[in-house]
Amino acid sequence: MFESAEIGHKLTKTAYRDAVPALRAALLQAQVSLFEKRKTPVVVLISGQDGAGKGETINVLYEWMDPRFISTLAFSQPSDEERERPPMWRFWRSLPPKGRVGIFAGSWYSDPIRARIAGEISLKELDAKAEQINRFEAMLVHEGALVLKFWLHLTKDGQKRRLKTLSSDPRTAWRVTQWNWDRLKTYDSLQEVAGHLLRLTNTAAAPWVVVEGTDDLYRSMTVGQVLLAALQGKLATSDALPATVAPMVRVNLDGRNVLSELDLTHALADKAYKDELARWQGKLSELVRDPRFLGRSLVCAFEGADAAGKGGAIRRIAAAMDARQYQVTPVAAPTEEERAQPHLWRFWRHLPRRGHVAIFDRTWYGRVLVERVEGFCSEADWLRAYGEINDFEHELIESGIIVVKFWLQISQAEQLKRFKDREKVAFKRFKITQEDWRNREKWHDYQQAICDMVERTSTGEAPWTLVEANDKNYARIKILRTLCQRIEAALQASAAGAGSDAASDKACGSASGQKDSKDSKGAKKSKRDKVKQ
Amino acid sequence: MFESAEIGHKLTKTAYRDAVPALRAALLQAQVSLFEKRKTPVVVLISGQDGAGKGETINVLYEWMDPRFISTLAFSQPSDEERERPPMWRFWRSLPPKGRVGIFAGSWYSDPIRARIAGEISLKELDAKAEQINRFEAMLVHEGALVLKFWLHLTKDGQKRRLKTLSSDPRTAWRVTQWNWDRLKTYDSLQEVAGHLLRLTNTAAAPWVVVEGTDDLYRSMTVGQVLLAALQGKLATSDALPATVAPMVRVNLDGRNVLSELDLTHALADKAYKDELARWQGKLSELVRDPRFLGRSLVCAFEGADAAGKGGAIRRIAAAMDARQYQVTPVAAPTEEERAQPHLWRFWRHLPRRGHVAIFDRTWYGRVLVERVEGFCSEADWLRAYGEINDFEHELIESGIIVVKFWLQISQAEQLKRFKDREKVAFKRFKITQEDWRNREKWHDYQQAICDMVERTSTGEAPWTLVEANDKNYARIKILRTLCQRIEAALQASAAGAGSDAASDKACGSASGQKDSKDSKGAKKSKRDKVKQ
Repeated sequence: MFESAEIGHKLTKTAYRDAVPALRAALLQAQVSLFEKRKTPVVVLISGQDGAGKGETINVLYEWMDPRFISTLAFSQPSDEERERPPMWRFWRSLPPKGRVGIFAGSWYSDPIRARIAGEISLKELDAKAEQINRFEAMLVHEGALVLKFWLHLTKDGQKRRLKTLSSDPRTAWRVTQWNWDRLKTYDSLQEVAGHLLRLTNTAAAPWVVVEGTDDLYRSMTVGQVLLAALQGKLATSDALPATVAPMVRVNLDGRNVLSELDLTHALADKAYKDELARWQGKLSELVRDPRFLGRSLVCAFEGADAAGKGGAIRRIAAAMDARQYQVTPVAAPTEEERAQPHLWRFWRHLPRRGHVAIFDRTWYGRVLVERVEGFCSEADWLRAYGEINDFEHELIESGIIVVKFWLQISQAEQLKRFKDREKVAFKRFKITQEDWRNREKWHDYQQAICDMVERTSTGEAPWTLVEANDKNYARIKILRTLCQRIEAALQASAAGAGSDAASDKACGSASGQKDSKDSKGAKKSKRDKVKQ
Repeated sequence: MFESAEIGHKLTKTAYRDAVPALRAALLQAQVSLFEKRKTPVVVLISGQDGAGKGETINVLYEWMDPRFISTLAFSQPSDEERERPPMWRFWRSLPPKGRVGIFAGSWYSDPIRARIAGEISLKELDAKAEQINRFEAMLVHEGALVLKFWLHLTKDGQKRRLKTLSSDPRTAWRVTQWNWDRLKTYDSLQEVAGHLLRLTNTAAAPWVVVEGTDDLYRSMTVGQVLLAALQGKLATSDALPATVAPMVRVNLDGRNVLSELDLTHALADKAYKDELARWQGKLSELVRDPRFLGRSLVCAFEGADAAGKGGAIRRIAAAMDARQYQVTPVAAPTEEERAQPHLWRFWRHLPRRGHVAIFDRTWYGRVLVERVEGFCSEADWLRAYGEINDFEHELIESGIIVVKFWLQISQAEQLKRFKDREKVAFKRFKITQEDWRNREKWHDYQQAICDMVERTSTGEAPWTLVEANDKNYARIKILRTLCQRIEAALQASAAGAGSDAASDKACGSASGQKDSKDSKGAKKSKRDKVKQ
């Protein structure tokens, strides 16, 4: 992996000087075209050995390009706002929008490498990280990004020489600290770990470029020309390359599916509802004030047909909590800033801090529901979204977030009744638009999309709970009860394990998941399920 | 102030129950109209005595309204990202966009009250805070916001009784901690400080509503009805009420102004330029690595006619710093999310953390330049903007940020030459648009706007530096030199004072400001100014 960067590459001053003007002009030209098209975000990772010229390389890129369309993010210690969210949150919030270049000094590779050298994670865990990274980077590429990963390499002797040269020059001596000298000692283990991780993450979509860091001129010119060629290549292909996807194949011999099997006649009388509501709201109120919850957080996802009662259910949950502890995020069309980012970006930005709750009224599943049915994205886009969504939820769960997802199912007849009722009440009329009536015509397409969604994203750790919602009382209680049970299971699992250990949490999610999915798959059988238990 | 809230107001359960349905329907209706118009952000402050029902009131509002269009922000300890920016940053980032309600549990009043009770600030300093708050709230109101400030009041005995009641009920006992009991001891000083601050901030644009907190039903119903009436009132008036502004009056007997007095023939030969460039870039590089700079930060504002050389000057500054330390923010038309906020919001979001540098290529002065000249905002809007901008910069400086502002002036003939040059170079052609040619036709209007801007916003603490920019060499060196001198003066002032004491910093800003404005006002005289010093 590193051999080709130990050759002793050099570039003469003359050759460098001769090449810079054309390179600079071409880079600026490419940057301008990129900005004008606003289709591609450019993600540039500058990683490598200490003293191999990471900072210098970034500065040279700024000299050559227009700094107004570049941002550089240095990731050292996470801030407290970052520490209280999944590890990838800080990178998501720093992604460049389409048309711009984001340079990452330090990246999602830094912490796995550090943790492995320090012996905090096993080789197997490192491999799992590599797999996560590959999926993340593939997602970026499929969302249209150009991902360029540079590894600046030095031999051990080379590193020692570089540090000596830097510290003997008064203009650069400040850059060399004891910390850098200490790193010389870990040279071999860094080489080993980085070599391993680079090999696993050297994907076709986002390959590594290893550059010899010894000679400043050689290194700068190489990075510049690779960047230029990649930008030009990206500009030449008109669009994002679609992911390799298998077409959706579906054989259903008896016409039954998870939705048709739901018993929509489930109902709950007002008196019983009132008692159950008080009971489960009280329970929820206790759970989110539980000291163990302070180290966790909760993400509730609500999906359902128009007028299925998402808003009402959310109000019943909200009423059990202190307003300072939760946020309700209604999801509508993405804003301009959100459209310039990968489709999951607008959900990452609303993730809760520890001890807090985020409730989403419609969610990241819009990609495989409305966007799929209405043709707002290509087939390849929504087909790959299932995996991306599973990865997203996995990252939340891994960091200690409890993820609970509800699909509220009503019949077509019930929906019609509710639409008509709404039109009679002034302050509810706004909820019914022409679009809602249009959506009704695509009822069948939506049902198909929902079944596919449940099939592909009801995972052990983040199962879907399908809610029979023709009766609002019944639906609200089922939702509150499920939510309480899921939180309780997660808190118990984290208490049983070592603190808020992510691994034990996963086991809990999976267990309660099996219960829930049985609940939805065999709903007709479970008359016992009538909110009595 | 508080007498009317010590009457022992009560509401019977029956009266409450009878009134709630109509209130709720009307609140929802108002909320919907608000959201549909998307003109008004609603800022609701819930403040007051501990135990007076702040949390309960917020929860009741959520019960009555649609939680999807409300967000509640609790401000306790600032996060580290917040601590490293001006105190108001955390409130700016939490402002609700137009069409939504933002409830502030804790607000910009909390810290001044706390600090005064603790004896950390003098009464005079508290009064200065009140003045700042009034200006901030007036800005919100003029930008279209509805600002509602509730103070929930209890008598001393009433507070003791409330705490006892809360702690004797198992459902609410968790809410009463030792901290609350301790607060009983500070009742009198809180009353005194809050009474003083409330009186000073009881403005016509954003008055306080003091509500007796003893009886839950009375309190909730009062807050709900005040909110409803305010929303309905706001919905009835079609637009934001304009600020009271004096029309711009200008008498100029001899036709001379700060721009006409600039000597645009200033020039610097290439050889001298090269030497000076190395000198000042070296100096700048040292200054931003100075340990004293770690506790400060720098905001550079660049304004100038099209093709005046802002980009080139910014590149020369950027080249002296590490890319990880600065961000260049090019300012174009605001995005959708930015348009839903007060005009300064999009600059607040880009403020640097401590030890960092933010360079703005075009700035918050767009309001009094392009928006004024092109009629993108009303006359009242840009006339009040001068004061709002001065307040904004004052808050930055007060928190230790060094603010340096450059206006790059070129002649009309020089601009024409540069436009034509640009059209010849492929990667510069994008910089020239039809709009640039149109802007040239309004040259005179822009010159007038610039003179007004300098007159009203070149303050002692944040002076404008007018740069004769027909010669790029001369302009770049003047900018670099000024920047270094301003940073150096600020660092010396903070070293001379008590650490990074804001007061001493202001003195420094003012001193260097007088120098700078002399520099611009009497530029013709200062041939000595030819970058030799």
